[in-house]
Amino acid sequence: MNKMPLLQLKRLGIDTHKEAIIYMREDCHICISEGFKAHTRVKVTLDDRSIIATLNIIKSSLLEKGKAGLSECAWEQLKAEENNEISISHARPVESLSYVRSKIYNNVLSEVQLNEIIKDITTGSYSDIHISSFLTACAGGRLDVQEIASLTKAMVETGNRMNWQKQIVVDKHCVGGLPGNRTTPIVVSIVAAFGLTMPKTSSRAITSPAGTADTMEVFTNVDLSLEMLKRVVNQENACLAWGGAISISPADDMLIQVERALELDSEGQLVASVLSKKISAGSTHVLIDLPVGATSKIRSDKMAELLISYLVAVGNKLGIKVKTITTDGSQPVGNGIGPALEARDVLAVLQNDKQAPSDLRERSLLLAGNVLEFSPDVREGEGYKIAAEILDSGKALKKLIAICKAQGGFREVPEAQYTYPVLAQQSGVVVNIDNRRIAKIAKLTGAPEYKVGGIDLHIRNGSSVNKGDKLYTIHTNSKGMLSYVLDYVKNFNHAIIIDSNNLRAVPRQNFLPF
Amino acid sequence: MNKMPLLQLKRLGIDTHKEAIIYMREDCHICISEGFKAHTRVKVTLDDRSIIATLNIIKSSLLEKGKAGLSECAWEQLKAEENNEISISHARPVESLSYVRSKIYNNVLSEVQLNEIIKDITTGSYSDIHISSFLTACAGGRLDVQEIASLTKAMVETGNRMNWQKQIVVDKHCVGGLPGNRTTPIVVSIVAAFGLTMPKTSSRAITSPAGTADTMEVFTNVDLSLEMLKRVVNQENACLAWGGAISISPADDMLIQVERALELDSEGQLVASVLSKKISAGSTHVLIDLPVGATSKIRSDKMAELLISYLVAVGNKLGIKVKTITTDGSQPVGNGIGPALEARDVLAVLQNDKQAPSDLRERSLLLAGNVLEFSPDVREGEGYKIAAEILDSGKALKKLIAICKAQGGFREVPEAQYTYPVLAQQSGVVVNIDNRRIAKIAKLTGAPEYKVGGIDLHIRNGSSVNKGDKLYTIHTNSKGMLSYVLDYVKNFNHAIIIDSNNLRAVPRQNFLPF
Repeated sequence: MNKMPLLQLKRLGIDTHKEAIIYMREDCHICISEGFKAHTRVKVTLDDRSIIATLNIIKSSLLEKGKAGLSECAWEQLKAEENNEISISHARPVESLSYVRSKIYNNVLSEVQLNEIIKDITTGSYSDIHISSFLTACAGGRLDVQEIASLTKAMVETGNRMNWQKQIVVDKHCVGGLPGNRTTPIVVSIVAAFGLTMPKTSSRAITSPAGTADTMEVFTNVDLSLEMLKRVVNQENACLAWGGAISISPADDMLIQVERALELDSEGQLVASVLSKKISAGSTHVLIDLPVGATSKIRSDKMAELLISYLVAVGNKLGIKVKTITTDGSQPVGNGIGPALEARDVLAVLQNDKQAPSDLRERSLLLAGNVLEFSPDVREGEGYKIAAEILDSGKALKKLIAICKAQGGFREVPEAQYTYPVLAQQSGVVVNIDNRRIAKIAKLTGAPEYKVGGIDLHIRNGSSVNKGDKLYTIHTNSKGMLSYVLDYVKNFNHAIIIDSNNLRAVPRQNFLPF
Repeated sequence: MNKMPLLQLKRLGIDTHKEAIIYMREDCHICISEGFKAHTRVKVTLDDRSIIATLNIIKSSLLEKGKAGLSECAWEQLKAEENNEISISHARPVESLSYVRSKIYNNVLSEVQLNEIIKDITTGSYSDIHISSFLTACAGGRLDVQEIASLTKAMVETGNRMNWQKQIVVDKHCVGGLPGNRTTPIVVSIVAAFGLTMPKTSSRAITSPAGTADTMEVFTNVDLSLEMLKRVVNQENACLAWGGAISISPADDMLIQVERALELDSEGQLVASVLSKKISAGSTHVLIDLPVGATSKIRSDKMAELLISYLVAVGNKLGIKVKTITTDGSQPVGNGIGPALEARDVLAVLQNDKQAPSDLRERSLLLAGNVLEFSPDVREGEGYKIAAEILDSGKALKKLIAICKAQGGFREVPEAQYTYPVLAQQSGVVVNIDNRRIAKIAKLTGAPEYKVGGIDLHIRNGSSVNKGDKLYTIHTNSKGMLSYVLDYVKNFNHAIIIDSNNLRAVPRQNFLPF
């Protein structure tokens, strides 16, 4: 196939997320002779590097004769430069797609087969269409525990893996975040101050107003190289880094975006996704927090129990200790929702500020206590007390600042230019706070792209309010967005339900594990 | 949401096949305030027309500030013009995706639910990712006969439907074409000459060197409007039109391209695809030809039997008579493979030319005879004889020419500029002809884009050949492609297997139904 003419690359700068696309002219000789059409999967080769890409046909003057373009992710995968010469040929059929078809026909996949699939996904041999089919074929409880374990293992093997040469390396993960539920920086600070190793990597927000990485970025740099991450952890026992920077589970990153497009949360994929990242980070003991609530990710105890059974079983198979805890997911946590506002709450808790949201403090102590109990030096049931001592003593605050300094410096929390209070339309008792709607409103302020954007919540379920009381305050730096979000709030303001026939305060829902 | 600023359209001319894509600048205010990222599904509104599109982010100067682009199919769906102003908002969650998830969890879908899904697919609310998930969830035998019937009905209801006011309207379909198997024009000519109504619509090649529509286009115009198609059929009892021009099953067109990407041939989708198009065309009696062979689409009798059971059962439920016939799919049919060469064979058969390929003639008579037996005037077992009489009498040839004239005129079959014979490397007996490899070689000549491109086959399974005998002749109009295809033939010439230890001719495989 070497007779094939080469094409010159032109950078079009089109971000298709993770989908590799090649753009070729309609009248391109290769397209005609090879019978390439829009949607054909082709092999693109630059020097010794090759990727599989989906073809888009250019019918305009976007590309001159003899030129081809690539989507940004394809450009990066190929380490391409302007005017580099590439050759294009038919993509070889992807062997492992036959395993996906086998799964569609209800066969159990072997470790080798799942490994092949994940390898091909990582190297970009699968289009989003193929990934979608794989995810669908594995959903609906079609993966047994052994398959989930194999999938997890495959994800670990295709990414970077850390080794800390320690008996115990702990981690903590929350399945399906609640708005404002920013316990991680507090837990990490307490646990590291105690002396346990906790190489914490977190994600940025994808659909929420803030991910832990976005919030931590208010304090310091989270975009650490693998080397720097190791240095920070060896020095401070812990880090608070963005997981995306060090690709510890590249396959999972590609699966997740398609899962979101499908709004599909397959138990098997979720378990593999969570555990593969913990194992890659070198963790030996992991605490997993499962908030259960009508408007949170896990909507029923039944769903929680199923997940827990998988998490524990797969953890056992792969040799890491998994402890789970179910918590109240009925409403947001803390006051601030959005990177800077959450950072403010985190700091307030660590500073033992009287104004600090007690629910965020309590949740953090509960989780930190459970993590501490992974240590042989901490007796069952004593974790919470020890965690509280470390927090009250100010050692946790010192540790957070030390970690931030090690990661590049500690920054003050910025404040928004514009704030706008949203008031209660009637007197009564708050009977429902919709996590999803609250998150949506916070997002419309520009969070997390704008760190100071978000909302400051002034009530909880069960709070008694009088007409005109502040329910929450909108924070943003853009007048345009303020009007935009107010517009939304006016039209769809069912985020907080006040029952006016119910003027006696009902007991506030408990956040402790049930 | 009317406060949202508008964007001006710029035509980028990017053909993404059937996927609606919108291209927006990275710094676009809407992207930031709405939190749009690459891959977000957004609602694009132009005047009173709206579509759902997937967002691609432009990080270059491809678009000026305030501009947005659309993929070609999105441009057409919106009937857009340069500089039209569009508004963009979050796409409402697609209700019917919850039915897809329900199917993933093995629930049976109702007629209403499948109808919703197909309607949403037709209106472009599903991305390829969603379509892939739907197809996967329905594959692996997860659709029961009632669901397949509902799916078929839904496809019919979302497309144009014809009504011929006739007791009997016949059609014929071949599941999974063999190279050169161009019986349709012959069958249609015979059946129409007999006097039955046969509004034949065919597809163009997608992965093969020629579809029936491509071959018919050698003779005449196949791109008929619905009105013209009706005129032709009312005048000549039949037409030979391209189905794509009159969208009789738009949903199916969208499903098929994703199925091909997945190399997934789900029985349910196949049955719904075939029958929905026949019902939309107003057919009451349909003959379905299933060629079975190791390198054809249907590889085993078991697969054929399963398909037949579905085809017949769904046909009954939807009130059309379905007759099936399995034929030999072990090798190509006729000599010519490629639009012009197949047209030449078709004409030779209709002209009762002594050189005409007898297998093409026999296959055509077999199928035409079965179609004729749908008529109350034709007794069982007499169809073949009547078909042969019509063919031998020259009436079928007259009818083909009449149909072509009604469609815009009858054209002579063109010939290729360059031909190149491929010779036997050894003496022996032809023991295998790989349908897929033969098709691939024919495609590399430029067919079907270049009508004269293709190959002319000189042997069959069981033919005795001497070293140096012509196996087939390559036809093309491009010197470049000739060298390109010869290159391929040299490297991968396992299309035809000659057994030199087997010098006695083995009996040629039978094409009659088994």
